[in-house]
Amino acid sequence: MIYITRKEHFNAAHRLYRSDYSDARNLEVFGKCSNPNWHGHNYELFVTVKGNVDPETGFLINLKTLSSIINTFVLDRLDHKNINLEVDFMSGRLASTENLAIAIWEQLESPVREAGAALHSVKLYETERNFVEYFGN
Amino acid sequence: MIYITRKEHFNAAHRLYRSDYSDARNLEVFGKCSNPNWHGHNYELFVTVKGNVDPETGFLINLKTLSSIINTFVLDRLDHKNINLEVDFMSGRLASTENLAIAIWEQLESPVREAGAALHSVKLYETERNFVEYFGN
Amino acid sequence: MIYITRKEHFNAAHRLYRSDYSDARNLEVFGKCSNPNWHGHNYELFVTVKGNVDPETGFLINLKTLSSIINTFVLDRLDHKNINLEVDFMSGRLASTENLAIAIWEQLESPVREAGAALHSVKLYETERNFVEYFGN
Amino acid sequence: MIYITRKEHFNAAHRLYRSDYSDARNLEVFGKCSNPNWHGHNYELFVTVKGNVDPETGFLINLKTLSSIINTFVLDRLDHKNINLEVDFMSGRLASTENLAIAIWEQLESPVREAGAALHSVKLYETERNFVEYFGN
Amino acid sequence: MIYITRKEHFNAAHRLYRSDYSDARNLEVFGKCSNPNWHGHNYELFVTVKGNVDPETGFLINLKTLSSIINTFVLDRLDHKNINLEVDFMSGRLASTENLAIAIWEQLESPVREAGAALHSVKLYETERNFVEYFGN
Amino acid sequence: MIYITRKEHFNAAHRLYRSDYSDARNLEVFGKCSNPNWHGHNYELFVTVKGNVDPETGFLINLKTLSSIINTFVLDRLDHKNINLEVDFMSGRLASTENLAIAIWEQLESPVREAGAALHSVKLYETERNFVEYFGN
Repeated sequence: MIYITRKEHFNAAHRLYRSDYSDARNLEVFGKCSNPNWHGHNYELFVTVKGNVDPETGFLINLKTLSSIINTFVLDRLDHKNINLEVDFMSGRLASTENLAIAIWEQLESPVREAGAALHSVKLYETERNFVEYFGN
Repeated sequence: MIYITRKEHFNAAHRLYRSDYSDARNLEVFGKCSNPNWHGHNYELFVTVKGNVDPETGFLINLKTLSSIINTFVLDRLDHKNINLEVDFMSGRLASTENLAIAIWEQLESPVREAGAALHSVKLYETERNFVEYFGN
Repeated sequence: MIYITRKEHFNAAHRLYRSDYSDARNLEVFGKCSNPNWHGHNYELFVTVKGNVDPETGFLINLKTLSSIINTFVLDRLDHKNINLEVDFMSGRLASTENLAIAIWEQLESPVREAGAALHSVKLYETERNFVEYFGN
Repeated sequence: MIYITRKEHFNAAHRLYRSDYSDARNLEVFGKCSNPNWHGHNYELFVTVKGNVDPETGFLINLKTLSSIINTFVLDRLDHKNINLEVDFMSGRLASTENLAIAIWEQLESPVREAGAALHSVKLYETERNFVEYFGN
Repeated sequence: MIYITRKEHFNAAHRLYRSDYSDARNLEVFGKCSNPNWHGHNYELFVTVKGNVDPETGFLINLKTLSSIINTFVLDRLDHKNINLEVDFMSGRLASTENLAIAIWEQLESPVREAGAALHSVKLYETERNFVEYFGN
Repeated sequence: MIYITRKEHFNAAHRLYRSDYSDARNLEVFGKCSNPNWHGHNYELFVTVKGNVDPETGFLINLKTLSSIINTFVLDRLDHKNINLEVDFMSGRLASTENLAIAIWEQLESPVREAGAALHSVKLYETERNFVEYFGN
């Protein structure tokens, strides 16, 4: 069993708030992140897959294949988007880093399996000092 | 003459577009950055000041003073904001990294001078791979 | 189960030595780190907590809460201090990175639990090339 | 149980190809990495060992010992070398990052054990965006 | 006048040696870098251009244009190549970082000017700890 | 004219204070940095030299030579030392980053010239967010 990780990034706008909270309550819970006019981040995404090395190629998975999966299922839908308004797989979910990491896992699990590997973890940096890791439930 | 640099950061949303361009023309010139629903960045800001070392303190400028100036005149007005809608010193300007670096210079030049140093440069990273430097005109 | 990490830093002085060793023996075992006049580091600290996402906020833990815990229980007692002389929770312990990581874990475990999460790991960089991780015993 | 990691680096040339593949097939599977004239990388290597803290020294393992083991068993044989042509422990293996990480583990496992610790993982960056981790089988 | 920088990277193999030196002399002057079987690097390239901001777009130069120039004139000819054997603009030159930075400048100066900006500097990292800067002669 | 930079690092303890200030005044001016029990840093040092490329070697200066100069004249005297107590070239000077950068310049200027290059700048990071540059007077 070996693990290989691909680092990608995307830029997006978001806002943390609940429509059933007052503005004051949103500000209290979510701070500056509740700004109604949005703010944004350069997200860094680390996708780790695991499996056995193919003795013919020396690869666990061809990184071009892995990168292509991440682009198709995640980056094309998130990069330069508004997470609250434009990302179908985040619809109805609070746009927290935790929820975004879980949703990215859900997009990647099947296509990674179909490519012959197993998804091990999704690690998502919102800023250089804050990141979330999800390993499936 | 010695130079000292303070690195700060802020997160913001923005959009590159001209209201006198059609949507198609905005997309052609500004690409994904013209998304009407905004996107955002973790901006990294390097402010460099120059001057002589005070023989009594060994400092060119007390970094607490410099950091306080940057916070008051720049970060408090930019962090977690929408650059197009909420930042007074960017009003009427295209929200490009170039224009933002020049506008940050304009906010900092006087207060740095009043603190006894001279502003040397503003260096602004929009992403890890793109940055702008401005040294005044 | 999800994991969230907060990166913090502090600067401190320390020295590696045993009072029951001769100077020569201290130098042999601890090298330049045994310098009686101290040396110091910019320590980087990564604190990882785990738990479930609160469906109301989308948070595992509010990062302001986590950062506040780390500041109160660790950074305020370590930053710009002499680890051998001034840090009560290191009293009587060799000031190695290993012992420091374990002691930081001990300071954080209870307050993180009281905040509704579980401490998962403490990762402590002494230099860019050396770091220790502790996951509890 | 505590974990300590040492980061090292080396520069090397390599090529991904199979002599039983045609040039066209090599290009299809391995892309630009199959270039017959070689290419190379600045590899970053993170070696993690685990064990108990020695109460006398406060160390899991003396980092000078660990660094010396990595230099003797890995770096002296890899740094500024051609992985396909000059590295005995890669003889007969495809020079992929996966195979290289596994081979590095095999070189380090015994000497780390003889030094009183246990090898936990080998993490090898081929580029800033691609890395492999191996924890033994 | 404003400055904008684009960071790119490429991987390549090379060797430092002179055919009119003996092997012993090559080893003495160039050390491990003279290995006849090659070694390689992940080069980081920072290209800085300068000029005025276009008031219509807010850009000094469209970064897609700059990136395209760097790809066409430099990266496509260097990435995953052997600098000594396969890079026409390095033919007859020692493959040192100094000479490579100068040669990259020569490839970029005209196309950057034709795109309406002026090339300011080429900064080339061979390793994280060694880099060269060239500003033209 | 070309510029080459070598990055080195050292760890040291220091304290900012004036013996002719009261403790309260030291605290007011120098903050936590005036702690009588010292604190310390992982300093990053970038030394840039300039000159012409030697057509025979392709080098401005052999980096082994430059690294050796920095080690002999700076690092051996600073690494794992107390800057206030043990570093002769800082004797009688406040241990600020500004003064340290100037003093490092003074140590390096002659030996770099004797090695056939010209010292261009000394850049010294005290923390990741604060650094000083000195280009001579």
